Amino acid sequence: MNQPTIYAVIMAGGVGSRFWPQSRERSPKQVLEIVGSGSMISNTIARIQPLVPPEKVLVVTNKLQKEIIHQQIPSVPMQNILTEPIGRNTAPCIGLAAKWIRRTDPDAVMIILPADHIIRDTEEFLNVLRRAVHTAQESDALVTIGIKPTHPETGYGYIQYEDSSEKNPFAAEGIYRVKTFAEKPNLETAEKFLKCGDFLWNSGMFIWKASIILNEIEKHIPELGDQLNKLEPAIGTENYQTALERVYGVIRSISIDYGVMEKASKVFVAIGDFGWSDVGSWDEVVRLTPIDGDGNALRGTVIAKDSHGNYIDAGSKVVATIGLEDVIVVVTDDAVLICKKGRSQDVKEVVDYLRRKQINGLL
Amino acid sequence: MNQPTIYAVIMAGGVGSRFWPQSRERSPKQVLEIVGSGSMISNTIARIQPLVPPEKVLVVTNKLQKEIIHQQIPSVPMQNILTEPIGRNTAPCIGLAAKWIRRTDPDAVMIILPADHIIRDTEEFLNVLRRAVHTAQESDALVTIGIKPTHPETGYGYIQYEDSSEKNPFAAEGIYRVKTFAEKPNLETAEKFLKCGDFLWNSGMFIWKASIILNEIEKHIPELGDQLNKLEPAIGTENYQTALERVYGVIRSISIDYGVMEKASKVFVAIGDFGWSDVGSWDEVVRLTPIDGDGNALRGTVIAKDSHGNYIDAGSKVVATIGLEDVIVVVTDDAVLICKKGRSQDVKEVVDYLRRKQINGLL
Repeated sequence: MNQPTIYAVIMAGGVGSRFWPQSRERSPKQVLEIVGSGSMISNTIARIQPLVPPEKVLVVTNKLQKEIIHQQIPSVPMQNILTEPIGRNTAPCIGLAAKWIRRTDPDAVMIILPADHIIRDTEEFLNVLRRAVHTAQESDALVTIGIKPTHPETGYGYIQYEDSSEKNPFAAEGIYRVKTFAEKPNLETAEKFLKCGDFLWNSGMFIWKASIILNEIEKHIPELGDQLNKLEPAIGTENYQTALERVYGVIRSISIDYGVMEKASKVFVAIGDFGWSDVGSWDEVVRLTPIDGDGNALRGTVIAKDSHGNYIDAGSKVVATIGLEDVIVVVTDDAVLICKKGRSQDVKEVVDYLRRKQINGLL
Repeated sequence: MNQPTIYAVIMAGGVGSRFWPQSRERSPKQVLEIVGSGSMISNTIARIQPLVPPEKVLVVTNKLQKEIIHQQIPSVPMQNILTEPIGRNTAPCIGLAAKWIRRTDPDAVMIILPADHIIRDTEEFLNVLRRAVHTAQESDALVTIGIKPTHPETGYGYIQYEDSSEKNPFAAEGIYRVKTFAEKPNLETAEKFLKCGDFLWNSGMFIWKASIILNEIEKHIPELGDQLNKLEPAIGTENYQTALERVYGVIRSISIDYGVMEKASKVFVAIGDFGWSDVGSWDEVVRLTPIDGDGNALRGTVIAKDSHGNYIDAGSKVVATIGLEDVIVVVTDDAVLICKKGRSQDVKEVVDYLRRKQINGLL
């Protein structure tokens, strides 16, 4: 059997308001060096390069971000950076990319990755992807990646898999039939999930043939399927942009999880254990950043006197702290965030406030 | 008897490193709006205007600050702004100003005021000054102002006065003979001082005739007296600057308190009770600034969420805080200070560190 052509689809439409003041509408999380060096999107593309060369990478983003993304990943051809007129969650984004890919290569397998995750063990990640691609190719299945949970996280959705062996033809490859998808749980439920042993974190990464997901969209989200079919003949023509805007004007916002995965019959999960994080908040960044002898993680020019347990990013300024404990400080040219550790989920509310007050320069 | 001519001498040579990052070598505390509105030096000069018109105000500063001070107090003639080549504490500064004043008016009384204090009750302050001027004029005494203490402060020197009535010819005017000067005490001693009832805070404000203080300097600091006498003929000539630099090259650093006040015989203290503070630290600024319902004092654009008891000056930036308690935050264009309340005396160490590391842009 032929090796399948593999495409990667990088979903990069997020505004990343949780990383204010670094993240802005024009420079969201995926284009920032949030953890370590290199922007998250360029690291994402570098990570899969052994499986997918840059010319087979599609990026789906929006007009505001297209230019900065292109600058960060110059090896990806400009025409591979697709823009959505407006974000409509993952199903339209994936459907659009699938139409582009199937047009070039009807048998291609697509790997769908968020642009803003970090993964510690790239080798293991690639191994999981190879097995998932193989399964998707062999069986026409929808494959998602579930992360082996390390703690009762309440910030992720969960995936429960079938552990009876007769239902799992790909068990040898670490790939199991999905039993159920679960929304973000409360702490009690998350602890129960962890104890069960057959629950995984929903990573939002998917592997399938372009043709198969388009069939599944037509079946389970027919109104989206119709619109994508109307768009198809315009792809590559001068009418494309007008057609795209018309389509995005009528389709509703819907996730691929809710729209397809929870309804389709042949859904599998590849178990991943490769040091994954979706880096959802400054607190998560703090957990991922090495600390010094005082428990501080310091970036830039920081003078920390009698200060412990802080995360301080001074940007291009100088920050001096005296007697400061367990605080997250992020300084940019125009703004300063000072947030008690454990409270960074509320950064979103600061951004909402700025939006309400129309302090647009800071959004 | 004639009304004396009254001059004010504003001592404005301090670098104010305790107010970093706002205070810099070129913009020290006295030219900042540290508390309320208006710079401290312009408020100081406005406050005494009913007693001393701007043309009778002398300011003693250094070359770095001359221009900004002139901009802030344009009503004071440029030639009244004297510069010292180097700071040598208060005795040389006062001696220099006295030479200038006596040259114009041998009988003039001078009021010497630091440029960077705040006073709440201007009327009462002026009343005390009027009585002190009268005493200095009548008796050729050296008069200082002692502040009625409100708490056992360890950051100030103290003045004990004679309370036996026969030694106090000016008691009716609230002016008493000084018994002793005491250095900054420890807390236990400060509490004892407060209990005694005859100890006052040493405010560093003085009232005397120019001719009298020059005599006293010659008597008690003869080497300074000699140098000032050598300088005198150069005043108003083209040789002045060279002569001044020669003098400051050889005189030693000495305070008027230690050099003269502790040794002279006719030393009186006027008791002041007019809401005085020398605003010696950010913590003192916090105490002097009105707070909102959350116990915060906020200047500029601050979004304070679940934050209490903070002093936050956002400068021209936006500051957002989440869950922050009892912290002092001061933001400037190039630096951010984040200091636990009660720890602002250590700001000086931050500046020392910057100086050692020769991060000159921030000094």
